[in-house]
Amino acid sequence: VNAPRRKLRLDLAYDGTGFAGWQEQPGAPTVQGLLRATLSRLQGGLAAVVRGAGRTDAGVHARGQVADAVVATRLADAELQSGLNALLPRTVRVTALATVDTRFDARRDAVEKTYTYSLDRSRWGDPFRARYALWHPYPMDRDALADALRRLPGQRDWSGFTAAACALEDRVRHLTAAAYHEEPGGAGVFTFTADGFLTHMVRNLVGTLLEVARGAMPPEGIDAILAAGDRRLAGPTAAPRALCLEQVVYRGEEST
Amino acid sequence: VNAPRRKLRLDLAYDGTGFAGWQEQPGAPTVQGLLRATLSRLQGGLAAVVRGAGRTDAGVHARGQVADAVVATRLADAELQSGLNALLPRTVRVTALATVDTRFDARRDAVEKTYTYSLDRSRWGDPFRARYALWHPYPMDRDALADALRRLPGQRDWSGFTAAACALEDRVRHLTAAAYHEEPGGAGVFTFTADGFLTHMVRNLVGTLLEVARGAMPPEGIDAILAAGDRRLAGPTAAPRALCLEQVVYRGEEST
Repeated sequence: VNAPRRKLRLDLAYDGTGFAGWQEQPGAPTVQGLLRATLSRLQGGLAAVVRGAGRTDAGVHARGQVADAVVATRLADAELQSGLNALLPRTVRVTALATVDTRFDARRDAVEKTYTYSLDRSRWGDPFRARYALWHPYPMDRDALADALRRLPGQRDWSGFTAAACALEDRVRHLTAAAYHEEPGGAGVFTFTADGFLTHMVRNLVGTLLEVARGAMPPEGIDAILAAGDRRLAGPTAAPRALCLEQVVYRGEEST
Repeated sequence: VNAPRRKLRLDLAYDGTGFAGWQEQPGAPTVQGLLRATLSRLQGGLAAVVRGAGRTDAGVHARGQVADAVVATRLADAELQSGLNALLPRTVRVTALATVDTRFDARRDAVEKTYTYSLDRSRWGDPFRARYALWHPYPMDRDALADALRRLPGQRDWSGFTAAACALEDRVRHLTAAAYHEEPGGAGVFTFTADGFLTHMVRNLVGTLLEVARGAMPPEGIDAILAAGDRRLAGPTAAPRALCLEQVVYRGEEST
């Protein structure tokens, strides 16, 4: 007798270093592909479907990715979580797993996402942060940076900060927080919260903000990029390894 | 005209994940080999000699390795440090560099070394610590562990805790500190300080201490292993990736 199909919510943390990103693609190691295959192994080879809230790029990390999955197994939630964590590599962890309403859609139902982008501000670079932070020992004009950050929040068309190849028609997103702070010991962290992000949006924002911080662009340059919607005006796309999907929030949940 | 030969002291931090250890060996990526080759590149291909204070095993990390090197270049110390850090991969950093007395010997002159061994005590394992800690979510008898740790310090023959293949005749070392503490957030850290360590000594100590902590060996087992000097009585050799050479102290310096 076949087990009934059910919908799971999976909360995931992963080190994206060795992955070609979240989204499954032929011949490349992806988090989605690995999860799908591992869920399938746990139900005797029966195909599973997995969808993520955010399609993290190659090399991008996650501490709070959320996925939904359709499975058909008699394993209980706790058994599935243990089984997945036993079969997955140590670099991918299922931090929570629950059977949810079959209508749950990890991507469409998300109301808020938070990404961080980490800088290593130490003189020579910390070898233990090489995979997780952008080494950026250069002077930063914190006043200019704060000025630029204040210009970002709001419901805006983010065309100027999205990948040139972005195929989406609707590029309006509501950015609710954009901040930068430095911790003792030389770690700098950008935090961005929005109801959604476009391709490369955070990395383009950071690349541009670092241009402002080094004095290569005035803070008002942010307004010009937003107004023109022209990607060519913005700074370079910052490296993926310092980006991390921290949290996805759903209706009825509070952000932490 | 050839530049005069001089002796350098290099302080090094490295992520050992991708290395076959410190010690140079043909056909394998080693920290010593990489440093020697990079110093050589900085002096027009002229051979350089590099010796380390501790021969870290494959996969073992360092935040405070010290090496001496003989070079013949007119580059100033600051230029050599910048040049090395520019040419070395981000996973190996020269944190300090100074010209020292030609008699300085990084290994023989060391009077004290400190190693840490890190545990990840979180339920499912933190993917960002997978390369730097041993995932060990199991219950630990902290009283038994403390009892075992108290039995270690002293000037002793460590044959029972060294690699079976260790060729050294003199296996007496003075261990001055052996401790374990847990930080909030699930990080556990063993710390060992001695005037020297034998091959695999810290990893064998940790493997044995974890046996005590899980109740598989009484704390008095430590005394029996020390008395018998028999490696077969001790626990397994703990994985290298959680081991880090934190500090090497020389005469006239204070440990920090």
